[in-house]
Amino acid sequence: MSGGTEELETLISLLAKVPGLGPRSARRAVLHLIKKRSQQMVPLAEAMHRVGLTARECLNCGNIGTTDICGICESEKRATGEICVVEDVADLWAMERSQVFKGRYHVLGGTLSALDAMGPDELRIPKLIDRVKSEEITEVILALSATIDGQTTAHYIADQLPGVSVTSLAQGVPVGGELDYLDDGTITAALRARKSL
Amino acid sequence: MSGGTEELETLISLLAKVPGLGPRSARRAVLHLIKKRSQQMVPLAEAMHRVGLTARECLNCGNIGTTDICGICESEKRATGEICVVEDVADLWAMERSQVFKGRYHVLGGTLSALDAMGPDELRIPKLIDRVKSEEITEVILALSATIDGQTTAHYIADQLPGVSVTSLAQGVPVGGELDYLDDGTITAALRARKSL
Repeated sequence: MSGGTEELETLISLLAKVPGLGPRSARRAVLHLIKKRSQQMVPLAEAMHRVGLTARECLNCGNIGTTDICGICESEKRATGEICVVEDVADLWAMERSQVFKGRYHVLGGTLSALDAMGPDELRIPKLIDRVKSEEITEVILALSATIDGQTTAHYIADQLPGVSVTSLAQGVPVGGELDYLDDGTITAALRARKSL
Repeated sequence: MSGGTEELETLISLLAKVPGLGPRSARRAVLHLIKKRSQQMVPLAEAMHRVGLTARECLNCGNIGTTDICGICESEKRATGEICVVEDVADLWAMERSQVFKGRYHVLGGTLSALDAMGPDELRIPKLIDRVKSEEITEVILALSATIDGQTTAHYIADQLPGVSVTSLAQGVPVGGELDYLDDGTITAALRARKSL
């Protein structure tokens, strides 16, 4: 169809399914990769193969790594007593990039959702309750989406953990944010949580 | 830095260099691929590895394939006597998708450009002149960009091929195009080349 061979067609159609790429950008990417074969294409294929073989979920927190227990759960440098609860691994990575949280994580794998039939047992909530007891956690920080489902999940988790300090990320104006571009909900939340200088 | 392992970091940084992806979409793509490991990630790594090993430029026309002479040059179904000249392989694929041209191709590998120091010998122009003689070509169709460099290249090629019919793609309003969104140059070209109904 496109003038390439079957191998090329296969590669393009597989690459077109990667989120962020479509058929057009997959074709462009393949031509680019073929031009940079030894510097990019071969190392990329090898890295993908290696991750495909070794990637697994941490049995403790649900982070993705190459060992049964991930580097963060195993690290002795991470503060014990604090768990940050996130929806998925991408959120965990975003928290890590800010380099400010020094405790451990717990990846839920989504939020409670009646529409998607996601109950507590579909998420890693029972495991969280276990960990809070067994790891002697004193503070659970909820870093969940500011959506209805996210907030429902936050309240559900708080109810399940009596006697533990459950906090959630502050809502307000993003750093560098211009008021003119913010939605009403954010401005309302920021005004209600205003602080004296 | 992102809470993943070294293997994941390597994969993300390599994927982020693919045109159309950046660091953020590469992270998202990797998480997606890990979730779809057996259906997408492993086949993609294998397809990429295979193409990385086998892809090569056709010695005759410059198309990318997995053999020394590409499928189009080898096919007996393709009309002899006509060559369509394109700048790069992506353009060849675009022509093939329209399924209307039944001849063979010649990929220049760019356009003449004084700024980028691209002369006739940097492109596949000498090979084109050879092919026109040896394959008894009667028509050379130039499917080059409607840019200054593209048109300079077109005129240069026409000058090098006396005695051969050299044509170029028509310029005008794209099918489905609205006049209001077209640039002045396209409207001017379409008006000059107007046809009676």
